[in-house]
Amino acid sequence: MRLRHKPWAKDYLEEHAGIVIKEPETKSGKWSAIFGNENPVHVEVGTGKGQFVVGMALANPDINYIGIEHFDSIIVSAVEKVVDSGIPANLRLLRANGKELTDIFEKGEVARVYLNFSDPWPKSRHAKRRLTHGEFLSLYQSVMPEDGEIHFKTDNRGLFEYSLVAMSEYGMRLLDVSLDLHAEMPEDNVMTEYEEKFSAKGQPIYRLEARFMSKA
Amino acid sequence: MRLRHKPWAKDYLEEHAGIVIKEPETKSGKWSAIFGNENPVHVEVGTGKGQFVVGMALANPDINYIGIEHFDSIIVSAVEKVVDSGIPANLRLLRANGKELTDIFEKGEVARVYLNFSDPWPKSRHAKRRLTHGEFLSLYQSVMPEDGEIHFKTDNRGLFEYSLVAMSEYGMRLLDVSLDLHAEMPEDNVMTEYEEKFSAKGQPIYRLEARFMSKA
Repeated sequence: MRLRHKPWAKDYLEEHAGIVIKEPETKSGKWSAIFGNENPVHVEVGTGKGQFVVGMALANPDINYIGIEHFDSIIVSAVEKVVDSGIPANLRLLRANGKELTDIFEKGEVARVYLNFSDPWPKSRHAKRRLTHGEFLSLYQSVMPEDGEIHFKTDNRGLFEYSLVAMSEYGMRLLDVSLDLHAEMPEDNVMTEYEEKFSAKGQPIYRLEARFMSKA
Repeated sequence: MRLRHKPWAKDYLEEHAGIVIKEPETKSGKWSAIFGNENPVHVEVGTGKGQFVVGMALANPDINYIGIEHFDSIIVSAVEKVVDSGIPANLRLLRANGKELTDIFEKGEVARVYLNFSDPWPKSRHAKRRLTHGEFLSLYQSVMPEDGEIHFKTDNRGLFEYSLVAMSEYGMRLLDVSLDLHAEMPEDNVMTEYEEKFSAKGQPIYRLEARFMSKA
C-alpha cells in the first residue's frame, strides 16, 4: 500500500497509533515500559522515510529503536515502511523535533543518538539549526548517560567538517571516523534512502562515532 | 645548481652549515638566540624537499621556521631550495627524527608543529610510527606551550581518519578541518611537492588544525 494523497495521512497515522507514539512528552521515563523490556534505546533524530531505523530494528532485535521525524508528510512514508516490515516490536516512531528531546526522555534514557544525512544548513547564519550544533549536542547529552554516543553519517562535506569541529569543541571524543564509508563497507552498515542515492553517484559518505565525556 | 650524486651531499651540507644546524641537541633553549629575535618558532617535522617550509618562511618573515628531516639524501634537496630562495634569515633546517624533538627544544620553545604528507604507515602494526600517534603527540606537547597547535595536511585518507581519532583520544581540540582543501583553496596555502602532485590528479587533500589542551 502506498499513500499518494496527504489528506489520508492523518487517518493513516491514527490507524497506526501503536507505531507513531502520540503525546510523546507524556512518555518521559516510561520507554522501557512501552517496549516491555530493559533493552537500550537508540534514537534516530530526523528519521525521514525510515529505511535506516527499520533496517536497524530488524537487524538488532535486542535494541529498541525510536525514529523521530518532524514532518507529518514524511513520517507517513516511515509508517508505511514499518507496516511493510511486519511492525517490529522493538521500533516506534514519533513526531517531534530535536529541541523537544528533553521533554520526551529522561536523563540516561537514550543510549545512543543516530543522525543521518541531516539538513546541512550551509549558510553560516543558520549554523544553530544544524543537528550537530553545540546546543543540540547539549540536548542529546541531557537524555543520555555520561558516556552516550552519537553516530553520524552524511554525504555533505561542509556539514561533516563543521560537525567534527563542533563535537570536538563540545569536548566529545571521536571513536571512529570514515571519510569514504563505502570504500570499505562495514558488513553491518544499514543504508538510508539518501545514502543509496548519493553513494550510487560515487560521492563519498562520511561517518563518525563520538562519545560524550563527563561534564567538567 | 642541482646535486645528482650522493657523495657530494656531505660536502654540500658542510658548505651550508649555517642553514643545516649541526648538533641540534646542543641548541635546546637557544633558538631565539640563533634566530636573533623573539619571534615564534614553527617546526615542520618531516620537511622533505623543503618546498613548504621555504614557502612559509618567505611568506611570513615574522615567524621563525625550522624544517626537520631525517634523511641526508632528502635534506640536500631542501638545502638547495633554501639557497635558491636567497637563504631567508628566519629559516633553518636540521637533521633529526621526530623522537629527538625533546632533546632539541625546551618546553614552550615551539609554538606550532606542521606535519605534511607524513608517511602513512598503513599497516596496523606500524601505527606507532605514524607522526600523529599518541606517543608523537606527547613529544610535540613536551616542546610546546599548553595551547600549542598542530597543523596537518595529507592526501592519505587512512592516515587522516586515524589522526582525527588519535588527536581526539589524546584530548586535543579540533579547530579547523577541511576534507577537500583545494575545493576552497585558502589564499595562504603553501603547497608541498606531494600536494602539487596529488592534487593535480584530483585527489582530495585533507587538512586539520588542532590544539593541545592543558594536561588533566
